[in-house]
Amino acid sequence: MNKHERMAAALRGQPVDRTPVWFMRQAGRYLPEYMEIRSKVSFLELCGDPDLACEVTLQPLRRFKLDAAIVFSDILPVVEAIGREVTFEKGHGPRLPNPVRCAADAAELVRPDVADALHIVPKTLDLFRKLEPNTPILGFAGAPFTLLCYLVEGGGSKSWKHTKQLLLSDPKTAHMILGMLADTVGDYLQLQMDHGVAAVQIFDTWAGILTPEDYKTWALPYAQRALARASGVPKLYFTRDSAPFLKLLPTTGADVIGLDWRVDIGEARKVLGDMPVQGNLDPISLYGPNEEITRRVHNIMRAAGPTGHTFNLGHGVQPDTPITGVHAMIEAVHSFRSTED
Amino acid sequence: MNKHERMAAALRGQPVDRTPVWFMRQAGRYLPEYMEIRSKVSFLELCGDPDLACEVTLQPLRRFKLDAAIVFSDILPVVEAIGREVTFEKGHGPRLPNPVRCAADAAELVRPDVADALHIVPKTLDLFRKLEPNTPILGFAGAPFTLLCYLVEGGGSKSWKHTKQLLLSDPKTAHMILGMLADTVGDYLQLQMDHGVAAVQIFDTWAGILTPEDYKTWALPYAQRALARASGVPKLYFTRDSAPFLKLLPTTGADVIGLDWRVDIGEARKVLGDMPVQGNLDPISLYGPNEEITRRVHNIMRAAGPTGHTFNLGHGVQPDTPITGVHAMIEAVHSFRSTED
Repeated sequence: MNKHERMAAALRGQPVDRTPVWFMRQAGRYLPEYMEIRSKVSFLELCGDPDLACEVTLQPLRRFKLDAAIVFSDILPVVEAIGREVTFEKGHGPRLPNPVRCAADAAELVRPDVADALHIVPKTLDLFRKLEPNTPILGFAGAPFTLLCYLVEGGGSKSWKHTKQLLLSDPKTAHMILGMLADTVGDYLQLQMDHGVAAVQIFDTWAGILTPEDYKTWALPYAQRALARASGVPKLYFTRDSAPFLKLLPTTGADVIGLDWRVDIGEARKVLGDMPVQGNLDPISLYGPNEEITRRVHNIMRAAGPTGHTFNLGHGVQPDTPITGVHAMIEAVHSFRSTED
Repeated sequence: MNKHERMAAALRGQPVDRTPVWFMRQAGRYLPEYMEIRSKVSFLELCGDPDLACEVTLQPLRRFKLDAAIVFSDILPVVEAIGREVTFEKGHGPRLPNPVRCAADAAELVRPDVADALHIVPKTLDLFRKLEPNTPILGFAGAPFTLLCYLVEGGGSKSWKHTKQLLLSDPKTAHMILGMLADTVGDYLQLQMDHGVAAVQIFDTWAGILTPEDYKTWALPYAQRALARASGVPKLYFTRDSAPFLKLLPTTGADVIGLDWRVDIGEARKVLGDMPVQGNLDPISLYGPNEEITRRVHNIMRAAGPTGHTFNLGHGVQPDTPITGVHAMIEAVHSFRSTED
């Protein structure tokens, strides 16, 4: 099987010659060649330049035997596209100088033409497919609720107090913004599909801050709405906290569920029925000894079973992860032989 | 029923006249009278003075119709007792100038005589019971794994990288420290029981950073060991992330499970069998309108059922929580009438 066939089969739950592997944030700060580029340009400049973004997307493929790439970008261009500036300060996460906290703020938001407002990633995809036609590439977007978190909070947070206050105090405005985000995200996923991605993933990173009732009101319906707007290739749904919502995840409309490391992948598959899954090594495992990494990778593969599994981390790779650990993980995926053979 | 009878019954799953209520961090920064005291003494001075600690423990009882108090203290005195200094800088969480990262560091730790090293809380309990004999008071401790997190990391963390690195790279040292912590915590719980607490709670706040396999190796056995060392009154186990481990929680040896807000309390009770529970309002709900707080409190009470439930937040109250929100929550607990009546 070539990489395209292997990824396509795994994401559709069909038999594969071996489990494919890629990992979240594989193009990023743990790579010296990425830091070399970042020494010359800022994160935002990198996200805004298709040539550089394509180069960075290609970097991990040169080092590691990976079965897929994910386009280098961020989830926040969608927030900029609907009308809010995002800045990145060194050593901090993203900041929105003007967060959206009330109906008047929300009225300033605009529903963008995604082909116009979000043209960098499509260009990056076109370049990548020309330079590296043998490797499937994934597109992605933030899920509507997770984008709302940044839009309202104005940056990362421990409590997400402002976001939850909006949900509690002005549900009408929150629903309005989420609807706008869902349609924009859906159109953006379709745009990436139209530029040849093999799959798309939405990241509902912060859905896990919600109660199950709030998840059903604020996160799930808008993830469904975004995913329903795009079709053509497999769609993946990832949340950093899948355990509380596991039973609900088959209703997202996604074809594949990306699991974080806090669930047993074998038990999760029982709950998810015949849905393919992706995951779920704890990214911090990569700081451990090689034998321990191998043991953990093989345990996951044994529990996940041979079909319908794409190997991945359970969250993005950490910026100072040792490259030897990444090598050990990928070697372990390649060396796995199920005892049932 | 008086407060003692009501709490005792709820924690044992016996019938009550109404669901009792207290909440985590009810003695704390959201109260102006607490901030008044803190304008004169530091957090560590407050924790080290039984008269002041008792006064602060009493404060929320004067404002709110609460069924129990929890002794004012912190989870980190146990870390100091086994040999590591803890400092608190303004605006930051706790810091350990000398974290424990290797076998040589661990060899410096000492198994303390808890009656000697942890004498403040017993004195505070004696004072409280003299001044407020009508209100039951809970004792508490950090669970061994959560204490290990602070001990190794040297403070709060997003990734808990150093802690996980120790587990991966030097499991022998990690098990040694956890054993020492478990025995110390167990003795400390017994000491608090000997000074008249109505119940004890252990906080395994950070257990949720672990995979299920790691939870079974590093958190669960040491929580069991600590809880097994103390007996006499009901024992509660709380973790900030109960969803991934729900099935395992009846094996902790606790009598009552404290649930965070990310699980449906009704569904959790089905998994936990006949174990009494405590919880589980999202603390950020208290920033919402009163009617919405009431609706959420009543939904929780309806889902939890009339017996074996102690009402609480799903995590500690936030420092800038509006007092009106706290009043609304407590009023809602008192005003609830189950539709089955």
